[in-house]
Order: sequence, then C-alpha cells, then structure tokens
Amino acid sequence: MRCLFYLEWLLHPHFLHALNIESVPSSLVGKKFQLDDVIEAQQFSRDILSAIFQVAREMEKIEKNSPGSQFLKGYLMATLFYEPSTRTRLSFESAMKRLGGEVLTTENAREFSSAAKGETLEDTIRTVEGYSDIIVMRHFESGAARRAATMASIPIINAGDGPGQHPTQALLDVYTIEREIGKLDSIKVGLVGDLANGRTVRSLAYLLSKYQDVKIYFVSPEVVKMKDDIKEYLTSKGVEWEESADLMEVASKCDVVYQTRIQRERFGARIDLYEEAQGKYIVDRDVLGVMQKHAVVMHPLPRLDEITVDVDADPRAAYFRQAKNGLFIRMALLKLLLLGWMRGLNE
Amino acid sequence: MRCLFYLEWLLHPHFLHALNIESVPSSLVGKKFQLDDVIEAQQFSRDILSAIFQVAREMEKIEKNSPGSQFLKGYLMATLFYEPSTRTRLSFESAMKRLGGEVLTTENAREFSSAAKGETLEDTIRTVEGYSDIIVMRHFESGAARRAATMASIPIINAGDGPGQHPTQALLDVYTIEREIGKLDSIKVGLVGDLANGRTVRSLAYLLSKYQDVKIYFVSPEVVKMKDDIKEYLTSKGVEWEESADLMEVASKCDVVYQTRIQRERFGARIDLYEEAQGKYIVDRDVLGVMQKHAVVMHPLPRLDEITVDVDADPRAAYFRQAKNGLFIRMALLKLLLLGWMRGLNE
Amino acid sequence: MRCLFYLEWLLHPHFLHALNIESVPSSLVGKKFQLDDVIEAQQFSRDILSAIFQVAREMEKIEKNSPGSQFLKGYLMATLFYEPSTRTRLSFESAMKRLGGEVLTTENAREFSSAAKGETLEDTIRTVEGYSDIIVMRHFESGAARRAATMASIPIINAGDGPGQHPTQALLDVYTIEREIGKLDSIKVGLVGDLANGRTVRSLAYLLSKYQDVKIYFVSPEVVKMKDDIKEYLTSKGVEWEESADLMEVASKCDVVYQTRIQRERFGARIDLYEEAQGKYIVDRDVLGVMQKHAVVMHPLPRLDEITVDVDADPRAAYFRQAKNGLFIRMALLKLLLLGWMRGLNE
Repeated sequence: MRCLFYLEWLLHPHFLHALNIESVPSSLVGKKFQLDDVIEAQQFSRDILSAIFQVAREMEKIEKNSPGSQFLKGYLMATLFYEPSTRTRLSFESAMKRLGGEVLTTENAREFSSAAKGETLEDTIRTVEGYSDIIVMRHFESGAARRAATMASIPIINAGDGPGQHPTQALLDVYTIEREIGKLDSIKVGLVGDLANGRTVRSLAYLLSKYQDVKIYFVSPEVVKMKDDIKEYLTSKGVEWEESADLMEVASKCDVVYQTRIQRERFGARIDLYEEAQGKYIVDRDVLGVMQKHAVVMHPLPRLDEITVDVDADPRAAYFRQAKNGLFIRMALLKLLLLGWMRGLNE
Repeated sequence: MRCLFYLEWLLHPHFLHALNIESVPSSLVGKKFQLDDVIEAQQFSRDILSAIFQVAREMEKIEKNSPGSQFLKGYLMATLFYEPSTRTRLSFESAMKRLGGEVLTTENAREFSSAAKGETLEDTIRTVEGYSDIIVMRHFESGAARRAATMASIPIINAGDGPGQHPTQALLDVYTIEREIGKLDSIKVGLVGDLANGRTVRSLAYLLSKYQDVKIYFVSPEVVKMKDDIKEYLTSKGVEWEESADLMEVASKCDVVYQTRIQRERFGARIDLYEEAQGKYIVDRDVLGVMQKHAVVMHPLPRLDEITVDVDADPRAAYFRQAKNGLFIRMALLKLLLLGWMRGLNE
Repeated sequence: MRCLFYLEWLLHPHFLHALNIESVPSSLVGKKFQLDDVIEAQQFSRDILSAIFQVAREMEKIEKNSPGSQFLKGYLMATLFYEPSTRTRLSFESAMKRLGGEVLTTENAREFSSAAKGETLEDTIRTVEGYSDIIVMRHFESGAARRAATMASIPIINAGDGPGQHPTQALLDVYTIEREIGKLDSIKVGLVGDLANGRTVRSLAYLLSKYQDVKIYFVSPEVVKMKDDIKEYLTSKGVEWEESADLMEVASKCDVVYQTRIQRERFGARIDLYEEAQGKYIVDRDVLGVMQKHAVVMHPLPRLDEITVDVDADPRAAYFRQAKNGLFIRMALLKLLLLGWMRGLNE
C-alpha cells in the first residue's frame, strides 16, 4: 500500500511540549515519509521510531467515547493467524477496537482455512483483502509477511513470522525503554536468558544500534548464547557489547535488565540441558537489590520462573506496563497505516 | 475492583410501578452496596438479588438503537475461556453487544494461550486486564475465578470454574422462577436428575434458602443423589426438603420442576449405571398432565431426552425462556459492574 | 420468519438508470415477495435474483461511514459453523460489519458446542435465536439448514450444509456473470473440472436454467463427470448442453470458463485417479489465448494449480473479483432478510 505523508505537524511547539519528549529532528521537516506495511524491525529509522512513539503517546491519552476513540470507525482489520498467539491477537484486536474499528478474527487459520486445502498464502491474501482494510498476520514461515505485503493492496502488519520477525514487539520494547528510562541514547541494557533463539532480543539489539552511546551486556547460558551475526552487526555500528556470566554485576550497572524465557521446545530431548539453562539466571529480589533506583526489569512475557513473583510488586518491575505499551504501539501503527500521519490532530 | 453505589433510585415509585415487582426492602435505602466481581452464588444477599433482578427487567425492555442499547459503548469485555462453552460465551457476548459494548474472544484459551507455555493464571489476568475493561472467565479449576479477582484491577465474572461455581446460571435460574411464578417465597421446587454432580442444582438450592417458606424435593437416581452438605445447609437455614422416588407425585405438588441432564462423563466405564440413571426420571406429557396450571418445567440446557420434545409446545415449558433470561441477567451484571447502580435511569 | 415486501421502489426510473442494469419485469410491480430464509438455490426465481442483484449493486456503492454503512446497526448475526470455513465465515462477518451490524462467532461449533454433549440442532437453534437476530449456519448434514429454518423465529442463511446446498455461492456466481458479461441470457458457459462432486457447479447449472438461450459445456475427467440428474433437469428446461473433452475448443466459444478444483478427499486411496484427473484440464495462458476478449475465467476458490498463476494478471481472470462479489451478495441478503425490501433507499 502506498501512502505519503508529511511530518510537519509533529513539530508544532504546543504538541511537542504537551508530549514532553524529544523533538522531531529538523531533517524530517517537510520530508515525505512512507509507512505502507509493518514487516520487520529494520524498516524503521530512528526518526520514524520517534514519530511512531509520539503517536503512541497520543494513544495513551485517548479516553472512552472521546473523538479519538472513533478514529478508525468504519475500518475493518482481519487477524489472519496461522499460528495461535492469543496474547498478540488480543492486543491487536483491543487496539483496533479502542480506536472504534472492527475486527474479523481467525484464531487458527492454518488448520481451518483453505490453506489446509493447499491454497497459497498469496491467494488467501487476495481473498481476505477483499473483506478488510488491513491484515494483521502471524505465520509459521519466515518471510511470509513480506510475501503477503508484496501481493496485498491493503496494509499488512507482521505479528510474527516463524523464527523471523516480530516487529511490533521490538517497537514496544524500545518504546517501553523510552517511557521508563526517559531516553534511548547513553543507556546500558542487559539482555538475559535465551539469546540464541529469542527473536525478541535479537530485534531489540538491532534497534538499539540506532541510538548513541548504547552498551549491551549479554548474559546467557552457554547453550543459548547470542549469535555472531548480531555481535558483528553491533560492532559494525559502533555499539559496545560484552558477554558476562555475572548477572549481579551486570544488573548493578544497567538501566534495563531484559529477561527472557528459556524455551523448552528448543532443546528437544535434551531436557538436562534445558533444565540447566533454565535455572541459571533468575531475576529475584537479590538482583533487584543491586539494581539502580531508576533501572527497570523487562520481559516479553509469558514468564515462567525466570523472574520470581516477589519481584512483581517492585516499581522497577516494568513487564506488565511493557505489555500494556504494546496496546499503544499497535494503536499507533493501525492509525498510521490506515489514516496516515496528518489526520487526528484536531479531531 | 471497588465501586460503591446507592440504591435510592430503585425506590422511585414510578420506576417500581413500571416494573411491577416487589419493592426494594427499606433496609436498603441509602445503603451502600458493593459489586466488584461475580465469583460465586453465595456472595448475593436476597436484597442484592432483588436489585439485580430489577435491572434485568429494565434490560428486557431495551430496544434496538435506543439509548439503553448504547449503555456500554466504548467498553471492552474479554471472554477468557479455558474450557469451551459456546452457549455461555455467546450469551455473555450477546449481552455485551446488546448494550453497545465490544468483545475480545478466546474460544479455547487453555490450548492456545500462553497458558500452554506455562504462564500462571495471575500473569495472564494482569496482561488481559491491560486490553479490556472486564473479564468473563471460564476455567477448569475450582477457585480460579477468585484467584483472578484477587489479582485483577478490573471486574471479573466467573462463567464457571470447574466443579466449583457458575453463579450467573444460578442467578438466571432464580430470576426465571420469579418471572414465571411471580414470587420466590412460599414456593415448592422439585430438583430432578443428577443432583450429585450438577453444580447448577447445588447453587440453586443454596440461593433458594434465602427465601421464606420454600420446600425442596429431591428426585434422583440412587447413584447421583444430592449430597449431605447441601441437605445440612438447607436444614440449618430452616428450608424444608425431602427426597422422593415418585416424580409424578412431586410434579403434582411443585411450582417448579427443575430437570437436569445425567452427565455421562461422570460415570466413566460404568455405562450400565449411566443408562439406568439416565432413563429413570423423564419429564414427558404424562408429567405435564399432573402439573399445576401455573407451574413450569425448567432445565439448564443442553437437554438430551430427559425432557421429551413433545413437552416443548406446552406453555409451561420454560427452559428456552430461561436460556433467554440468561441474556438479561448477564446484561444486568455487565451494566452494574461497569457503570454501577446509579447510571442509566435518565439516559 | 415472515416478512412481506413490495418491489415498487425498484422501478423508480432514476434508480434503475443509476444502476444501469436490466429493469425489473413488469410482472413484479406491486407484487408481494417473501424472503424469510436463504436455504437453497432453487428457492430463487429469475425475478427475485434480479431484485437481489440490484440490492447487491447498491451495496457495492456504500462508502465508509456513509449512512448506508449503518443500515444494520443494532443487529446481531450469529455464525454457527459446525464445519470450519474461514473464507465463507469471514465473508459473512465482513458483510455484516460493513453494514454496521455486530457478530457472534463460533468457529467450530461441532467440537465445542453442546452439540458435543448430544444436543439437537433444533435445541441449539432455539437457544442461539435468543441471542441474535439472524443465524448464518454451516453444517455437515444435508438438510440441516432447512430443519433450522423450520424451527427458528429469526432468519436462517445456509452457508453450506454438507453435500447439499451452498446457495450464497450460487448467487454470487450468477451475479458475477452478470457483472462481468453484462447479461445472463444468451450466454455460453463452460463448466470445467470436478463436476460430479462440486455442489458449486451443480447449483450454477440449476440457476442458469432460469435464463434464456443458455448453452452449457461440461469439460471434466471421466471419473468426475456431471451426473445425470442435472443433465436431465437442463434438458427438461430446454437448456442446451454438451460434454466435451476439448477445453481449448470450449474456451474459444464460451463467455465464461468456470474452473473448479478436483477435490483430493473424494478419491480416498485412489491417489492415481486423483492425479490423473487433477492434471487433465488446466486453465493457463494457452487457454486464455483462445478465449474471446470479453470472456472471463471464474473459480469458486480455493485454487490449487488448475489455474496457473500467470493467468492472474489477465483482466479476464475474474475469480478474485468473484470472491469480492460474495461480500456484496451477502450484504444484500443480510439487509433484505433483516430490513426487507422497502428500507434504505432514502436513508
């Protein structure tokens, strides 16, 4: 889908003041942006991230039955989930409905749809785009979202395609850091847990490279260490990183401790390796004890016991706020893809 | 969730007259009620039941596209069903939509959600409450709804938790008796069928104990007799009860014959016992023949052949009206939990 | 459901001119129509088809947030699917929402609902009609829709009942021919592929017999030839037909080449027969090459490789437009069943 837009309104002083966040770089004034689909984290520049986050802040302020709550009235979103993901689906559907839009749901398209009869993804997309205004899809194959976007004449949002991308998760993670820490430059982030398989931490590392003076610590069991491609990418971008086996020391230095779940399904029959990895780095009250007062614990959820429940009550436990931020990021993306950047300010 | 309210408006003479039902006890005038969650039948006093029923009557009168049909516009209900129950789910979703609200649906949360990855119910609730304004949940574990309500900052409605409670079914049953018979004091109720396993009849017996001069007859096959805890409870509350093996005689005396399904799944391999129990007490035209003219047959549905199809045409067959009453009770509860008692009268 | 209506408004000259389609036969002026349910293709006369298509044309013109987009505001449609069919379900749900209506969804009623506990379809219908204003049902048993309609006090739309009927598919097929070719009389239609098992081509043949001077060609592998009942029916109605093994020759003569999928599941263990049938008649660029300029290729979808992908870009490839027409036909039917024929013109 093609839609061009200007960012001039983002520079209105009153608006920026109200939001109290970093101003839009002057390089963007009058420049045409283009947001047709959301396919992968890499598509977003620092400037466009900043602009999306400003819209997300606007979304946080929308009240029930206010004009903003009807921004997407008359629009229809199809959630085409070839893999079930109740959490992600509900987050998108809530976002659409919070903006007055409507939803067509498929909870398990892989099993139920004509895909089971051998229809190609391309054909399914061409059919579903006749019924809806935007498609949010989750697929089991890496690259599926891009294939869909190539075919579709309406916007596609990738809600995860296999081991590939989950860009809205990456966006909400970065948005959460900005919301919690107040900045994205000059921060120290500890990525903990399964760094080999988690697409979340990989995307996050990628996006963090867009900011200045970022230091990343990798803390993971030996079997699920961060892979070389990301390390090399960070180095090439001038991002400092180091590996550490000492969670306490890392936690004491970081602004963000980003914990992840060790995914049992990655270990096959090697339950022994899983169990060893699973219990190795736990965020508990001891870890909280060494963390700085302004620092936060994040987690993409679901959480098993890699963060103990007694951490939840601490104000630095940001993971449920992080989940909620997913709602605002998705509201922002839906609005931007369907209405563009210009609408909504004076409505 | 905390919400306080007054019941004064319920005493407005015009309103009471219009509804033509028993007036609110004067003990309630100006008294603060509190309805935060719907967890179990026991939480409702006689007074609060009466007040809920008044709101349900108001719900029956709401017409398409009238102001009342938009009471819950802008509100979002999540149906978090860990066990499928299409009937109950559709009833709640219809109730929400009849009031202008929106719905996020999970048809089979147990299999699909992050529960499958080991997430606790508490974590799921903390996530879903970020996406919605009220959660209707069905769970396979007794006590799950209470756990959810303890955690949640938004209202929880228990739509059944395992062998435990199904309070909205109990409410609609009592509401139906009042609607059909015109009173809840001085009535005779025959509970028939599976009295051991059916949570419906257990909850109903419990709620009936709140009324005066109620007589309950238990008519069931030997293997699924009413358990002692309920019998003792009734006795302690001064409710008369007796067991009988003679459905005809009981039917001739009762205001309500409440039939239930013998649940095959309770008998395991003992198909012989199931079949014996299943065919023992059937409500057919012969039973209708001895029933009083004002009496009714009720059933929580689904029905197999414990009520013969030729009973359906008789005006005393109340079970489909009973199902419909579930809609009005659920509309009333959604409105009360989301808007409180004060709103809606002059809108 | 009973609803009577007049068709006089359809004759308003301005309206007819705007639509630029064949005028309503004068035999209909002032005549009472009756559209209570949509159960089978046979229920529609040529006149009523023409009237439905006029409404469908009106539906094509409804714009987002226009008054027409709120025609069904306040109405609730239940999709009761005992067999999953994501495509058909989404099409109906989109149609309802494009008209401002709301939807209660059951993606897999057979497995989840009380049907699994042994409830009859009739009881389910009596319950669900309490929650909704119209029921769209798909069932695995031929005749189920008729049984439901007999019981229900609200309209029933058959979205496919087993090997039986799928009337809305038949309607959208005929509508597509009219939209693409501009007429339904004096046309030549080639039905290609699985003519024995496809209910689509059977219904289409039936409906085409209502028009004048239609010639039908059957092109199919030996094992899935059109059955005698349809051939005899066509003959009795004076419709010319012939069988041919030469797709190229048929394609060069026809206005419509209607390709269908050979359904593997019909062949059981005889994979050899399936494979032979499956590859026999493919619509590719060679077939396009002999087709007339105004002719079109249709397909009920999903498509496997019986139409090659390089056909898609040709303007004569009408199958995705055909799928989209399903939306307009379903919008028309929902509007007609819920509002009747009179409403909507001046709104």
